[in-house]
Amino acid sequence: MKKVLVPLAKGFEEIEAVSIIDVLRRAGADVVVASVDGSECVCSSHNVRVLTDCALSAVDSSSFDMIALPGGSEGATTLATDALPQKLIKEFHAKGKFVAAICAAPIALHAAGILQNVPYTCYPGCNAQIGGLYTEDKNVVVSDKIITSRGPATALAFALTLVEVLFGTPKAKELAAGMLKTCC
Amino acid sequence: MKKVLVPLAKGFEEIEAVSIIDVLRRAGADVVVASVDGSECVCSSHNVRVLTDCALSAVDSSSFDMIALPGGSEGATTLATDALPQKLIKEFHAKGKFVAAICAAPIALHAAGILQNVPYTCYPGCNAQIGGLYTEDKNVVVSDKIITSRGPATALAFALTLVEVLFGTPKAKELAAGMLKTCC
Repeated sequence: MKKVLVPLAKGFEEIEAVSIIDVLRRAGADVVVASVDGSECVCSSHNVRVLTDCALSAVDSSSFDMIALPGGSEGATTLATDALPQKLIKEFHAKGKFVAAICAAPIALHAAGILQNVPYTCYPGCNAQIGGLYTEDKNVVVSDKIITSRGPATALAFALTLVEVLFGTPKAKELAAGMLKTCC
Repeated sequence: MKKVLVPLAKGFEEIEAVSIIDVLRRAGADVVVASVDGSECVCSSHNVRVLTDCALSAVDSSSFDMIALPGGSEGATTLATDALPQKLIKEFHAKGKFVAAICAAPIALHAAGILQNVPYTCYPGCNAQIGGLYTEDKNVVVSDKIITSRGPATALAFALTLVEVLFGTPKAKELAAGMLKTCC
């Protein structure tokens, strides 16, 4: 069983978060949605209120294979500045686990110091804060165990890439077909 | 102010629902998320628990411009068989308001009797239940006030089309650019 941690902070981008959760659960992953501030309900950037599975502080991080961060300016800023998600990003990276971030959330990887000399992408403009090896011509960038993507319209491709690295290409292709990704 | 009603029934497809809500709110619509069974929290097809704004039975339907239905097999079946969403679909259509459905949800429009002689699309296979003027080569079909689409991967295009019919093409193009739709 592959286990994926999705931290939600107030102001997360809901298409991005839900694409990650939905697609990884379709693949069979155990996806744990955890609130950064410990509240049961977290409100997205456009006021969709999602109930979380637990508080991030209550998570046993050792049992996970991946941490995947949705964007949204406010949510990503919290992921970049709050001590707990920063500690977890560093820990997952140090243990050779997958670390994934989309849209504004790569700023949280940068804040954790793990994007140095790593090709990445992000929401256009956020790269100004990050510098380094910004890649603007790809929707999803896989750099060893660090996976980044650009924004709401690339969220499905991003989530399918997370499936690919955890479950293999045939599973990702099967899900893409079922979600009609081939037709877009 | 444009007002859009999004009924959620247990087992709704979460990428589709959230794309509708997120994109229409970005456009400035007043989007009301209403639970078909009256519960405050509705669970999606992949166990994302979303808090609704109100019960569908408490909605004053006269104030809305559009009803937009997410898919998901279980949720769409409820929309097709429960008396209240069926009454609302018929009422919106009879009053010349927009009626929109994606994925499996066009079966609810069919059940309400409003898809006769209307070109539509839906999740591949659901057309077997509906018959009529199924269009398989388009991701979004606009037939006067009835707008239909195919599945999770077409949800963003569907939501942007809802913005287009309510707010005009420039607003839809502006949002598409901001969500990086042009890059996919």
